[in-house]
Amino acid sequence: MEVDVQFLPMGPPSEFLSSRAVVVIDVLRATSVIVHAISRGAMEIIPVITVDEAFRLAKTFPAETTLLGGERGSQKIPGFDFGNSPREYVAEKVRGKRLILTTTNGTRAFHAVSSAREILVGSFLNVGATARRCLEMGKDLLLFPSGDEGNFSLEDAVCGGMVINHLIHQGGDSIHLTDSASAAHFLYQQFKQNLIEAFHVSHHGKDLIHKGLEEDLVYCAQVDLTNVVPVFREGVIKPA
Amino acid sequence: MEVDVQFLPMGPPSEFLSSRAVVVIDVLRATSVIVHAISRGAMEIIPVITVDEAFRLAKTFPAETTLLGGERGSQKIPGFDFGNSPREYVAEKVRGKRLILTTTNGTRAFHAVSSAREILVGSFLNVGATARRCLEMGKDLLLFPSGDEGNFSLEDAVCGGMVINHLIHQGGDSIHLTDSASAAHFLYQQFKQNLIEAFHVSHHGKDLIHKGLEEDLVYCAQVDLTNVVPVFREGVIKPA
Repeated sequence: MEVDVQFLPMGPPSEFLSSRAVVVIDVLRATSVIVHAISRGAMEIIPVITVDEAFRLAKTFPAETTLLGGERGSQKIPGFDFGNSPREYVAEKVRGKRLILTTTNGTRAFHAVSSAREILVGSFLNVGATARRCLEMGKDLLLFPSGDEGNFSLEDAVCGGMVINHLIHQGGDSIHLTDSASAAHFLYQQFKQNLIEAFHVSHHGKDLIHKGLEEDLVYCAQVDLTNVVPVFREGVIKPA
Repeated sequence: MEVDVQFLPMGPPSEFLSSRAVVVIDVLRATSVIVHAISRGAMEIIPVITVDEAFRLAKTFPAETTLLGGERGSQKIPGFDFGNSPREYVAEKVRGKRLILTTTNGTRAFHAVSSAREILVGSFLNVGATARRCLEMGKDLLLFPSGDEGNFSLEDAVCGGMVINHLIHQGGDSIHLTDSASAAHFLYQQFKQNLIEAFHVSHHGKDLIHKGLEEDLVYCAQVDLTNVVPVFREGVIKPA
């Protein structure tokens, strides 16, 4: 099983993706939101690129079961039900609901890898379960950090490295790492005693602290809060 | 001074490059060859993309001062004077000569960043001098690992991280790292006690060992063998 990490958030060619499983990772904060909301009972999440698209799509569903979430510039979008803090997505609000989500980096990532064989949603909150699911599938794997406005994001690479750490310990000699996968694994080892430290080094983490959202960093750094591994298929994210 | 690292070998847009200095790094082995050959007295080096272009260009110069070097599949090209091992480029053979070079990754990299304000050639062999030259210039900096057939290459990122380590120690608070620059710096710290270990982890390093070229790895891992920092300008690499 080959494990690769895409260090810049650009979708590889379809012929590369078609035989692979992909794990989309946007620790701060889209995939943390998605994993958290699904673990709290959300029925499905539809990631869309633009705010207009989110409003348009919401009108096509029953209002009582449909909620809007996401951010621009890390802030809640006017007219939306939720921002992009996983803490907002509590069971009382999301259970049984459809969520339409638009964020700067994370929701784009799903569309960039949409031709992959299988697409999972990863974060620190479900990192162990994500690795187990990848081993069960046994397919070559691409970890896809969503990046920071087109650039490499440290915290997503560290999370990818933690998935790889699980794979190596559970998959042994069957796991072959590309150079980027080896690098992500080394970066994880650098921060494994204190994952939040990676957020304090990263550009996006520092920006969220600057905007008064430091509590989200603490929340998103929680490891194995849930065993849910959401799946993105035909435009919709659902529990596996 | 902002320091960035381009983790995938794709040239950023011209408007990004036009105000920046770029250091091209292809430790295994193109930039190690270039730095070594210039330090041994080569007059100039012209990096070209294809083997045909190398032969064509050679015919336009006097035969007695022009040599052909490079590789395909890590092997010397038939009809060329040199392969891609820095050890071949000794003073007796290269002093005062023009060298036309074509390699799989490194020579492409120069053309990918050709719109940058200033383009330097970096490797472990001249890492300290490269960092000093960057600080003297004082421009925002992009370290450009040449990669491994379009993929991230660990050894180039580690070398970039060593340049950054010098910049931080000599430039202090004036040095601002992007996430990829921070990651490269962490990767350097992982291997600083034993740089060759990075070659043993990397795909390209393992391939060279497999092809019997392990001596080149030892050669390319030498630190600060020279103070030469070659410059690429208008298609030609020369001593600064």
